[in-house]
Amino acid sequence: MTQLTRPSTQLTLAGAHTVLHAAMEKADAMGIPMCITIVDTAGHMVAYARMDGAKTMSELSSRAKAETAASSRAQTGSVTPGVDIKLGLVTGGKLTNLNAGVPIEVGGEVIGAVGVGSGTGEEDLEVALAGIAAFQAALTETAPA
Amino acid sequence: MTQLTRPSTQLTLAGAHTVLHAAMEKADAMGIPMCITIVDTAGHMVAYARMDGAKTMSELSSRAKAETAASSRAQTGSVTPGVDIKLGLVTGGKLTNLNAGVPIEVGGEVIGAVGVGSGTGEEDLEVALAGIAAFQAALTETAPA
Amino acid sequence: MTQLTRPSTQLTLAGAHTVLHAAMEKADAMGIPMCITIVDTAGHMVAYARMDGAKTMSELSSRAKAETAASSRAQTGSVTPGVDIKLGLVTGGKLTNLNAGVPIEVGGEVIGAVGVGSGTGEEDLEVALAGIAAFQAALTETAPA
Amino acid sequence: MTQLTRPSTQLTLAGAHTVLHAAMEKADAMGIPMCITIVDTAGHMVAYARMDGAKTMSELSSRAKAETAASSRAQTGSVTPGVDIKLGLVTGGKLTNLNAGVPIEVGGEVIGAVGVGSGTGEEDLEVALAGIAAFQAALTETAPA
Repeated sequence: MTQLTRPSTQLTLAGAHTVLHAAMEKADAMGIPMCITIVDTAGHMVAYARMDGAKTMSELSSRAKAETAASSRAQTGSVTPGVDIKLGLVTGGKLTNLNAGVPIEVGGEVIGAVGVGSGTGEEDLEVALAGIAAFQAALTETAPA
Repeated sequence: MTQLTRPSTQLTLAGAHTVLHAAMEKADAMGIPMCITIVDTAGHMVAYARMDGAKTMSELSSRAKAETAASSRAQTGSVTPGVDIKLGLVTGGKLTNLNAGVPIEVGGEVIGAVGVGSGTGEEDLEVALAGIAAFQAALTETAPA
Repeated sequence: MTQLTRPSTQLTLAGAHTVLHAAMEKADAMGIPMCITIVDTAGHMVAYARMDGAKTMSELSSRAKAETAASSRAQTGSVTPGVDIKLGLVTGGKLTNLNAGVPIEVGGEVIGAVGVGSGTGEEDLEVALAGIAAFQAALTETAPA
Repeated sequence: MTQLTRPSTQLTLAGAHTVLHAAMEKADAMGIPMCITIVDTAGHMVAYARMDGAKTMSELSSRAKAETAASSRAQTGSVTPGVDIKLGLVTGGKLTNLNAGVPIEVGGEVIGAVGVGSGTGEEDLEVALAGIAAFQAALTETAPA
């Protein structure tokens, strides 16, 4: 029989902060202040921090990266060049192919994403991945035996 | 221990269509073509129909009604007059106090909402509630014994 | 002689987090999940948190409240009724007269603001003021003797 | 100890006018009417002039140039081709890689920026740099011995 509902998993604010704080720690260690946005699976913002000295406009890029990763359920940066621009245009700039939007996953389900901006695409991605790694480690610790 | 995630229930397209078709049937029976929007708990559109003859702009009102009911987890229409206009302004018109936005609930959790427009507020609400009633009836039928 | 520059004080992320965490603690104690936005003196977002269960759309109201308090250098809510709507319209919804936008001040200079939303205006304001009180207390502790 | 605030320097209107008037003088001397925007470090407009005969749309380009230089704390024009378009999309057109956005600096701190448009990129930049040079000269004159 067709199901009217399906079970899913949501990211909590505590989960978002786990990603955020680890990402900030990494950015601090690299000496590069960043803008970091965490969104839920629907793309709505759960947590945000602009580290002292980060670029003001990176609020917008970090958010678009996070929203894109949540919507596509994939790390940003692999859309065919040219197509990415067209997708950016039809979404009013929400969809971006810039590096450093990374999904937050639990058991194969994407429950949110992190987006990082203010450095180079490589630096941004390193910070985003540090946030994801800390979340996965914390998940293991908090999982029932 | 702080939880990084929490379980939740999502509305499927089949669930959204259950609401939509029942609402359309009601509108047909009343002889009033309607715009009907179904959104998920995050406010993203899952299903939409503009019945033949419905007002074009009612796309916008039906959607705002659904988004408002999903965000506030309550039927639209009970915000204090005056405050509703201010909330409409800060949300770019997304939050509305017009009648006929109704949450879709399962076991006390809001998993989406329906918004209806093109008739009077009373007619719109009657159509929305018909959709909700059909969903609740179908839930009971599909629930495990 | 006319001065080309003037000294000023900026809010750090640590300062913003002091406000944010105290506000969250208050909202937790009240049992009302909130959306909390901290902006700098220019109205740019420095930190944001959506507590679990807060209304999605309160992201927008909490931000507009913070931006308005930073821009006007005054607590929101005292604009003449009617005028507030006109100001909301010309600013594209950025200026709001809703309660619970409160400036962050140091020595009489406004260096940012906090905006809170998802409860009633009175509840929102109580949470905002708890954030401000914690910041002022922390300032005293960190001030040189 | 973590600091809740940090000292900074702000651009005054007198400082902005020093840039603006020198830039206009240069544009006059070149016989090319320009649109000239001065923003503070947050990207908010402090002063603007559209010289008689300048292109109307250059209001937008001069402003985006200034905002970009202020946000990135660097002269516009050096973002990798391709990346610049993506950054333009996610910022709603605010971030631009067009020439002639130049930061206004004091003692190594960016306190604002000037953006110029209506000529070629080279002409625009020449006018912007004339404004900056005049500001630096005036700073030296007004500095305490």
